Amino acid sequence: MADAEHKTAAATRIDFATDPSRYRHWKLSVDGDVATLLMDVDENAPLFPGYQLKLNSYDLGVDIELADVLERLRFEHPTVRVILLRSGKPRVFCAGANIRMLAGATHAHKVNFCKFTNETRNGIEDASEYSGQRMIAVVTGSCAGGGYELALAADHIILTDDGSSTVSLPELPLLAVLPGTGGLTRITDKRKVRRDRADVFCTTEEGVKGKRAADWRLVDEVVPNSKLEDAVTERAREFAAKSDRPTDAEGVALVPLVRTRSDRGTDYSAVSVEFSSDRRLATVTVRGPDSAPPQFAQDMVAQGAAFWPLRLARELDDAILDIRLNELETAVIVFKSEGDSDAVLAYDAFLEAHASHWFAREVMLKWKRVLKRVDLTSRSLVALIEPGSCFAGTLAELIFAADRSYMLDGPMDGDNRPPAAIMLGAANVSGRLAMSNGLSRLATRFLGEPDLLDEANAAVGQSLDAERAEELGLVTFALDTIDWDDEIRVFLEERSSFSPDGLTGLEANLRFGGPETMETKIFARLTAWQNWIFQRPNAVGPDGALRRYGTGQKPAFDMKRV
Amino acid sequence: MADAEHKTAAATRIDFATDPSRYRHWKLSVDGDVATLLMDVDENAPLFPGYQLKLNSYDLGVDIELADVLERLRFEHPTVRVILLRSGKPRVFCAGANIRMLAGATHAHKVNFCKFTNETRNGIEDASEYSGQRMIAVVTGSCAGGGYELALAADHIILTDDGSSTVSLPELPLLAVLPGTGGLTRITDKRKVRRDRADVFCTTEEGVKGKRAADWRLVDEVVPNSKLEDAVTERAREFAAKSDRPTDAEGVALVPLVRTRSDRGTDYSAVSVEFSSDRRLATVTVRGPDSAPPQFAQDMVAQGAAFWPLRLARELDDAILDIRLNELETAVIVFKSEGDSDAVLAYDAFLEAHASHWFAREVMLKWKRVLKRVDLTSRSLVALIEPGSCFAGTLAELIFAADRSYMLDGPMDGDNRPPAAIMLGAANVSGRLAMSNGLSRLATRFLGEPDLLDEANAAVGQSLDAERAEELGLVTFALDTIDWDDEIRVFLEERSSFSPDGLTGLEANLRFGGPETMETKIFARLTAWQNWIFQRPNAVGPDGALRRYGTGQKPAFDMKRV
Repeated sequence: MADAEHKTAAATRIDFATDPSRYRHWKLSVDGDVATLLMDVDENAPLFPGYQLKLNSYDLGVDIELADVLERLRFEHPTVRVILLRSGKPRVFCAGANIRMLAGATHAHKVNFCKFTNETRNGIEDASEYSGQRMIAVVTGSCAGGGYELALAADHIILTDDGSSTVSLPELPLLAVLPGTGGLTRITDKRKVRRDRADVFCTTEEGVKGKRAADWRLVDEVVPNSKLEDAVTERAREFAAKSDRPTDAEGVALVPLVRTRSDRGTDYSAVSVEFSSDRRLATVTVRGPDSAPPQFAQDMVAQGAAFWPLRLARELDDAILDIRLNELETAVIVFKSEGDSDAVLAYDAFLEAHASHWFAREVMLKWKRVLKRVDLTSRSLVALIEPGSCFAGTLAELIFAADRSYMLDGPMDGDNRPPAAIMLGAANVSGRLAMSNGLSRLATRFLGEPDLLDEANAAVGQSLDAERAEELGLVTFALDTIDWDDEIRVFLEERSSFSPDGLTGLEANLRFGGPETMETKIFARLTAWQNWIFQRPNAVGPDGALRRYGTGQKPAFDMKRV
Repeated sequence: MADAEHKTAAATRIDFATDPSRYRHWKLSVDGDVATLLMDVDENAPLFPGYQLKLNSYDLGVDIELADVLERLRFEHPTVRVILLRSGKPRVFCAGANIRMLAGATHAHKVNFCKFTNETRNGIEDASEYSGQRMIAVVTGSCAGGGYELALAADHIILTDDGSSTVSLPELPLLAVLPGTGGLTRITDKRKVRRDRADVFCTTEEGVKGKRAADWRLVDEVVPNSKLEDAVTERAREFAAKSDRPTDAEGVALVPLVRTRSDRGTDYSAVSVEFSSDRRLATVTVRGPDSAPPQFAQDMVAQGAAFWPLRLARELDDAILDIRLNELETAVIVFKSEGDSDAVLAYDAFLEAHASHWFAREVMLKWKRVLKRVDLTSRSLVALIEPGSCFAGTLAELIFAADRSYMLDGPMDGDNRPPAAIMLGAANVSGRLAMSNGLSRLATRFLGEPDLLDEANAAVGQSLDAERAEELGLVTFALDTIDWDDEIRVFLEERSSFSPDGLTGLEANLRFGGPETMETKIFARLTAWQNWIFQRPNAVGPDGALRRYGTGQKPAFDMKRV
């Protein structure tokens, strides 16, 4: 029942843009350098009809607001050093992802929902590590499943010792699925909980409270209710003292995106998305800056959200999320660019020169996150490098994020512009735009050919034509005008004829060579197992645990181990 | 059709024990320090009825023989330093896993088949790294899918340049699944093929031949047909010269296992397996040695396969594989032990003292592989440590491989033996029994509590009672006699009530904290995605690619990306 409604509802477009005036589920208050982020979910405001968000449970709509407020905390509140994550409800911190929503959602929605929530939680850890904004989870009441996974993303978890407040990961015993938002990886790899205790914890529906929660490393401290506020204040002071965020900066307002939707696609100020539904393509064109970068840091702040690198990053992020969740039949994202490469590199250079300025830092970190989002997008990605393009510096990362790239060698028919060129910049070689495996995209690309990494370093700032780019291993194929149209057409047709699932698995493997990190473990090991389980009748079948939850009927399991 | 037949056939027990007199698919010849292993699959000898093993394709039966011959090369041929892997068929090296078999197999069989073949290929790399036995794949003819994945496990791949011999991974375009035996991970992480080239390679049905195969790092050298044998000989000499295997040792015959099967279970000489089908348990009891270790290395060799550590390892390996493939409804494996801990440690000490002896080295490496097989077994694992047990040294690894462990504190009702004790030995702390993540089980266990790792080191050789073992973090729970029966009963009942799939995913995450290696990437990232795809209708549905392969009908795909 909920299922049918959902699938209908999913036909309406999910919008990732929001702002505080529209929040239904979160309340932000700021007191000096400490912000309090109160989770207070409106149970009557689910993203889809058919379920209520009881007990501070969440769906994608709640998480879209969370992602938004976290971005605003970075940009609009430069002086906030500590975020206290608390519940606005009595006796419950957060019950995790809403079960009725999960039971009714399509497989694709469940997978994309988990991916987005994972990205948001990784963003919390990124803010802590790189942006000086630390989070303390103040757990009062029941903190279950996705609720505890949210707390796990914080730097510090305080659990009140009131005899009833607990942390738990009851997904397996209750729902026959896994904690899907990094919980298993964070308990073994971030909190380093002993594996047998983790086994006990994850199979104990009621969770763990009090001293045992601290002894088992599940929380950082357990504090009697009467001393809770003192402990929170003290801890906030400690974390704030260690932050390098500015003490007296004005924030930059994240004004609404300029965005026009039509049947053919979406237009932003610096990004255009064009859908070719019959060919199952989305062409994403990013446009270089119209003008030179500002002269001084204060001019950049004055430009605010209009500052070209930030504006483009936000637009690209919105475009990618829109394709992911709303254009499920799109097989391939084609990246193109238009503009002046020197101007792009000038902005990169400006950002590097002001790397210690809080706003420049945030802009660069935003790009890192957006590019990681691209890496994790389960669509085939291809970059087409044509005359008039500006794949330089930060924008050249789109070439290296793509599964493959084609560069036109020579002029384009009916186009007077000079042949395409690529320019590398510091952004490509410095590692500041590292993938989730901890390496730059070029380092990942050249794992087997470290000499080419050195050559790429040496080529920074040079205009590289197709022949040279191919020689340096920067593009997959350089093609001349005669072959261009046919080769691209054949590739796109072929790609869209393959099994979408097979491609998802293939790309999830080939994109992430080299080292694994907690982040890649979450997106590969944990997510891949969860996706498998999300396909298994024991979880999602008509008699499976997700469907039977709350009905009073026990799920019926096929007891064969695989 | 094949499907129904299969499922019936799978009801008969798959036997992992074989010997050269029974081989149907492989031919071994030895010439000095070089062995030639010829793959020459008998197409009329599939493991199940309903398909033919055409074009040197393989099924589990072929791989059981391969695993057997590789074990024999280690133990029976100590002077063999190089293995040449070649095809006994014209124009085809190996076509990979048999597609009709895959199309007809149950999900559980597919998954277990891939796991076993992965373990065998990892064993090839282990022999190269630790045992001085290198493999050269001499590729003539078409080397596709699992065939190329087998070649990828070798140290060196020679491809003949005859205009038609190719390497390929056509799984995605042809079958909508992934190369399931480590192929994707080995091309990105072992051979470090550039990711966009890997993308092209894995989407190109016909594969790559000649110079491009070498330029793209897919093979190590490409040699004209006329010079092939010279190149093979030369390369074999080079690799042999680098080996540290003995020059004049006699091998140890791997005589048939002593094994008696009944309805209740299986008895070996040092292992007993008891099935409690109603409780969905398999109790695996390992028995310590009956006598002291031999005095000298030559006595160990004279004992041969009867040498207790080897005998036990082979029996345990067989027992685990039997449960995995033949007892799918078994939820929990309970590990028990019986014997004298001092005697177990004496054998460990003997092995350590003779670590440079080829046979002692092989025995220790065999234990490493068997314990990894335990780690990767998708059953809940629990160790029960009771009076009379001998969980010491190598055998104590079973405690640390288990998802949790219970130790009885005090005597057992009606049992006069002294209370249970654990003894650590060098085997537990030296790292020589490392898990696939590269760490010892204790190091993995104590990622968050490195002090306990130091304490474990200090406790080597001590008899640790339940209280002390719990204090040192070596067991999950120490229970007294009053609680023992009830706690164990409740745990076992609870465990067997959970979703088997959920447990598989949970355990696959919690067991492997810490670093990832190529091996863990293969078993987690790649395997998990493959398992997911093996559930998706695009691959395995009635209109999916696996079912429609060879029918002339194109598969019908749901084009939604997830």
